[in-house]
Amino acid sequence: MTQKKKIGLMGFGKTGKAIASVIIESKEFSLEWVLRQKTTLEHRSVSEFLGFDTEDSGLIYSTSKITADDLLAKHPVDFIIDFSSSSGIYCYGKAAARHQVKIISAVSHYAQAELDLLAELSKTATVFWSPNITIGVNYLLIASKFLKKIAPFVDIEVIEEHFKQKEGISGTAMRIAEELDVKISDINSVRAGGIVGKHEVIFGFPHQTVRLIHESISREAFGNGVIFVASNLADKPHGLYNFEELLLPYFTD
Amino acid sequence: MTQKKKIGLMGFGKTGKAIASVIIESKEFSLEWVLRQKTTLEHRSVSEFLGFDTEDSGLIYSTSKITADDLLAKHPVDFIIDFSSSSGIYCYGKAAARHQVKIISAVSHYAQAELDLLAELSKTATVFWSPNITIGVNYLLIASKFLKKIAPFVDIEVIEEHFKQKEGISGTAMRIAEELDVKISDINSVRAGGIVGKHEVIFGFPHQTVRLIHESISREAFGNGVIFVASNLADKPHGLYNFEELLLPYFTD
Amino acid sequence: MTQKKKIGLMGFGKTGKAIASVIIESKEFSLEWVLRQKTTLEHRSVSEFLGFDTEDSGLIYSTSKITADDLLAKHPVDFIIDFSSSSGIYCYGKAAARHQVKIISAVSHYAQAELDLLAELSKTATVFWSPNITIGVNYLLIASKFLKKIAPFVDIEVIEEHFKQKEGISGTAMRIAEELDVKISDINSVRAGGIVGKHEVIFGFPHQTVRLIHESISREAFGNGVIFVASNLADKPHGLYNFEELLLPYFTD
Amino acid sequence: MTQKKKIGLMGFGKTGKAIASVIIESKEFSLEWVLRQKTTLEHRSVSEFLGFDTEDSGLIYSTSKITADDLLAKHPVDFIIDFSSSSGIYCYGKAAARHQVKIISAVSHYAQAELDLLAELSKTATVFWSPNITIGVNYLLIASKFLKKIAPFVDIEVIEEHFKQKEGISGTAMRIAEELDVKISDINSVRAGGIVGKHEVIFGFPHQTVRLIHESISREAFGNGVIFVASNLADKPHGLYNFEELLLPYFTD
Repeated sequence: MTQKKKIGLMGFGKTGKAIASVIIESKEFSLEWVLRQKTTLEHRSVSEFLGFDTEDSGLIYSTSKITADDLLAKHPVDFIIDFSSSSGIYCYGKAAARHQVKIISAVSHYAQAELDLLAELSKTATVFWSPNITIGVNYLLIASKFLKKIAPFVDIEVIEEHFKQKEGISGTAMRIAEELDVKISDINSVRAGGIVGKHEVIFGFPHQTVRLIHESISREAFGNGVIFVASNLADKPHGLYNFEELLLPYFTD
Repeated sequence: MTQKKKIGLMGFGKTGKAIASVIIESKEFSLEWVLRQKTTLEHRSVSEFLGFDTEDSGLIYSTSKITADDLLAKHPVDFIIDFSSSSGIYCYGKAAARHQVKIISAVSHYAQAELDLLAELSKTATVFWSPNITIGVNYLLIASKFLKKIAPFVDIEVIEEHFKQKEGISGTAMRIAEELDVKISDINSVRAGGIVGKHEVIFGFPHQTVRLIHESISREAFGNGVIFVASNLADKPHGLYNFEELLLPYFTD
Repeated sequence: MTQKKKIGLMGFGKTGKAIASVIIESKEFSLEWVLRQKTTLEHRSVSEFLGFDTEDSGLIYSTSKITADDLLAKHPVDFIIDFSSSSGIYCYGKAAARHQVKIISAVSHYAQAELDLLAELSKTATVFWSPNITIGVNYLLIASKFLKKIAPFVDIEVIEEHFKQKEGISGTAMRIAEELDVKISDINSVRAGGIVGKHEVIFGFPHQTVRLIHESISREAFGNGVIFVASNLADKPHGLYNFEELLLPYFTD
Repeated sequence: MTQKKKIGLMGFGKTGKAIASVIIESKEFSLEWVLRQKTTLEHRSVSEFLGFDTEDSGLIYSTSKITADDLLAKHPVDFIIDFSSSSGIYCYGKAAARHQVKIISAVSHYAQAELDLLAELSKTATVFWSPNITIGVNYLLIASKFLKKIAPFVDIEVIEEHFKQKEGISGTAMRIAEELDVKISDINSVRAGGIVGKHEVIFGFPHQTVRLIHESISREAFGNGVIFVASNLADKPHGLYNFEELLLPYFTD
């Protein structure tokens, strides 16, 4: 049996915890450590904290007590997964490149400074960034683009549904609209109750309709995306990658 | 076997023709005549024109050649179904009342003058008006109101989908929003390809979602609405009725 | 300000915990105690255990240490909510009747012996039982029956979707089929991934389609159902009630 | 301006008529003639019969009065579109190959004998066959296969909805199931009212769901498929083609 690939996780908020769970349950990957800003939970076992019976995970560390360099020296990993914030990359980016650790960032927004840093790091390291790291949404995006290519004159509208409190148009819907050249005014945003997240792309032909729909059930969906990305990034040389580049090779006969 | 109730139809546009088809195929009602403005098709048999094998229908007449009074005298009916325009009521309204014929109007919009005339006629005749005469949409409207009564604080949004060329928010969606106290900005209008017509009311609860959806397949749906209304109006005394009043008695155990 | 009505909860499994959360957050009701078989968590505070900041809830007790009679004497409540198992009613039923506490049972299945006991208790106590205590599903059931009454000859099919592991047709789908006189073979069961739970009733008319859809987001939905039932049961005299009886009064103009 | 490509149409049933309408309205193609078995409508103008103002189409011929060879000699075309029956190919196949006319067959089922004939013809002619010639369904099929490639362990189920009278599982659903390795028992067939045709492929992931949905509005959808196929087949050398081969080149960046 092959050895599990090792993962270090940046960030331990709600989504970070969900990602940690998925990695701990994975057969291909192991969770070596979590690195976060806060000192709460320091040195607790991740699997024990999350209620797993297994002890098969590392501990929680705080950036205020240990540097990424030291952590990588003591507990080497193959991938760093980043679900922290846009500033997280400054903590571990250069250390990761030095240790030849692959970087997978799922941070929602980066300013130009961070984008520049990612590009710089990618000269010597394998760097991946996707603001939405679910397989479903990224598949939707690519499959939609191909349908538009097949039928350039089809009418396209987007419906996105989320919980009442979510403000503004969803970032994913904006991204879909941008890629498909759909006007912002053709995005329909529904805000009602506790809807987790639904994106629907409607292709209206004169005599038929095609709909591509993605529904989120829980934030663990990001975990499965991480596993997919890490698996597909394993053999990639240094460079800057996005989700589309990893998915495209599957769209061939 | 009971005798079929007799219907006279005002209007013979696309929708009028669809309604005529449904009446001709009905086992409860017969189509005695069609009265329209244009003289084209005058004295043609409706069933023959629509391609039915049966000769079981009356002829097409023009308002420029015969008055409603004369037509009702020669070819008495139990109901006049109006799919013409807002001015149609002036042609046949008073004659219908005089002959004790029940009036079923499916005209989309009336100005105050016509609404006043309907009210006047209803003092001596049975008058029904519904701007959308499908069973499905009217059921949706009532069932939605009851869910809002059960859960007054639920979030409600409306999605309506129609063919690309349809301008403005659909009248039915406006009506739904009005009845449910939903803001116009919470109506989402999708315009794409050849979608016939879809209305969806979304009720967002904190931990569950209820959706009521109506989809139109073809304009013959109006014909089934007409049959339903005529059947339920048969025993009603004079007065002014709407679809809700006919449906409400069904909402009891 | 009115005082909160007091609730005692039987059962503290996954669903029991979700119900406890909803009650603790409610403005109308307070959670006085939880009674369960296991002795784990005994005397822990419910709100503290569930991670609420507030101390506004009672403690957890075990049926192996205290009788329902003693518990009701020390910590009186207005309602007992039962999310335990079919045998739970034997623990608290008679005590509840003696103390004039209203019983709300959401147990999925009862054998005839327990149904007889409920009937017996209802001679002196207010007793409610619903195997699915969500507002959405019960609304769907009633609203569907009314549409069938309006259009007796409409074609009806049911689609239910659940997570891959769920075995057999869902109990709710069976109930819907039974109430609407739909054949079991016209229930379509989809089992895929982690779908929480979706029930769709399709009404096929010749020229239009109506769909009523209920989607579960999380088990807290049962908590909102409990709140609704308790509110509507507050003034009810002794007797045996079901969800339909509480909903019907809302289906009037 | 480029000259319109010329089309001859085999078959003039309900679908044949819809296809004729779409071709007549096309800017790229002209309808030179219709060839059918029956002698009714012989020598009538297609566009006049279908109610177009334009006279921009050819006439209707009967196979009992003229051979395909003679027709092709008098009224040459670039494509023959076949919406007749499985035996149609015997009328025009060899003549088409001789005249270097491209063959586009949308016949639902062929026996082995006809499949052999198509293969034989394709040695010297450009031959295309697709039992479902809509862009939407064929896109659905390919896009679904790619998603299964991306996520081989995802749960897949199919829902297909059609009008009450349709017997058996739809051929398209069977095809989807076959291509995706889905068991026949995981196809859910809804039969209700007048639903024109809906196919939904559900991909159930542990924490998210993807749905691809195709809805037919009217049989004119086949006409747009024909136009797409003819456009993409225009430059193709002799050989036997299917829809997938024409679509695949669009699935690249």
